[in-house]
Amino acid sequence: MKNDEYYMSLALKEAKKALLIDEVPVGAIIVKDDKIIARAHNTRESKKDVFGHAETNAIRKANKKLNAWRLDGCIIYVTVEPCIMCGGALIQSRIEKIVYGAKDLKGGAFESSINILEAKNINHHPQIISGVLEDECSRIISDYFKTKRKKEEK
Amino acid sequence: MKNDEYYMSLALKEAKKALLIDEVPVGAIIVKDDKIIARAHNTRESKKDVFGHAETNAIRKANKKLNAWRLDGCIIYVTVEPCIMCGGALIQSRIEKIVYGAKDLKGGAFESSINILEAKNINHHPQIISGVLEDECSRIISDYFKTKRKKEEK
Repeated sequence: MKNDEYYMSLALKEAKKALLIDEVPVGAIIVKDDKIIARAHNTRESKKDVFGHAETNAIRKANKKLNAWRLDGCIIYVTVEPCIMCGGALIQSRIEKIVYGAKDLKGGAFESSINILEAKNINHHPQIISGVLEDECSRIISDYFKTKRKKEEK
Repeated sequence: MKNDEYYMSLALKEAKKALLIDEVPVGAIIVKDDKIIARAHNTRESKKDVFGHAETNAIRKANKKLNAWRLDGCIIYVTVEPCIMCGGALIQSRIEKIVYGAKDLKGGAFESSINILEAKNINHHPQIISGVLEDECSRIISDYFKTKRKKEEK
């Protein structure tokens, strides 16, 4: 069985694809029974779709692949802490485990901005693992925004 | 200008369409400049798509209609309090106002299960109005589950 760092490195590869189309570089991989069933990156601006985050794109692909809206027994590896929308979707999907790299202080839904797992009466609590390849996952985002600001200043 | 009850009655009509395909009867309408730009109902089971809630379906339609992922200046009328996923998506979309009918004690994201507007550092706080045509919006759901249980008992 491959380890968390291995799958996060693939999520980072997805994040790099987002860079190529000038999207915030976030990537995600969904794994079931040690097989990758979805790979996705952020496409919100290019597709003009609010559900274009890496996690939502990966969930949609996994729903299609499994022909089911439930993702029981699946693990998502995502380079950044999911936002409230994506975190809510992951809970709804009954995903087994959420592994993320960098925290998102501005909108992270599992520790940084709020912890949605503290909501009353929710019927599913995925396991959460954070900080996997944290530095690389964080650096690719901060480099992106630094470059973007420099371009705008010119 | 038409009032909240008028638009909620149209959202209820959408909820009734969900009933016809044996989906939990929730409906939503998105309005901009007093014009309806999206009508949708719950399709999660039939489309096998975790994003098949009435609100997510309505947001996707509105994104397409406006050719933009932002819904500035839009109002959503939805028969039931949005869940964390839908509530998060509505905040992300920068929607101006969220009007809902019945509370959702099991998963409502604006008062019942959690209040996601209390998250730190979020960059948009839509106005919230609740309780519009509350009884009708609540009854259609409770009737649906009563009928479903009766069928299963047979």
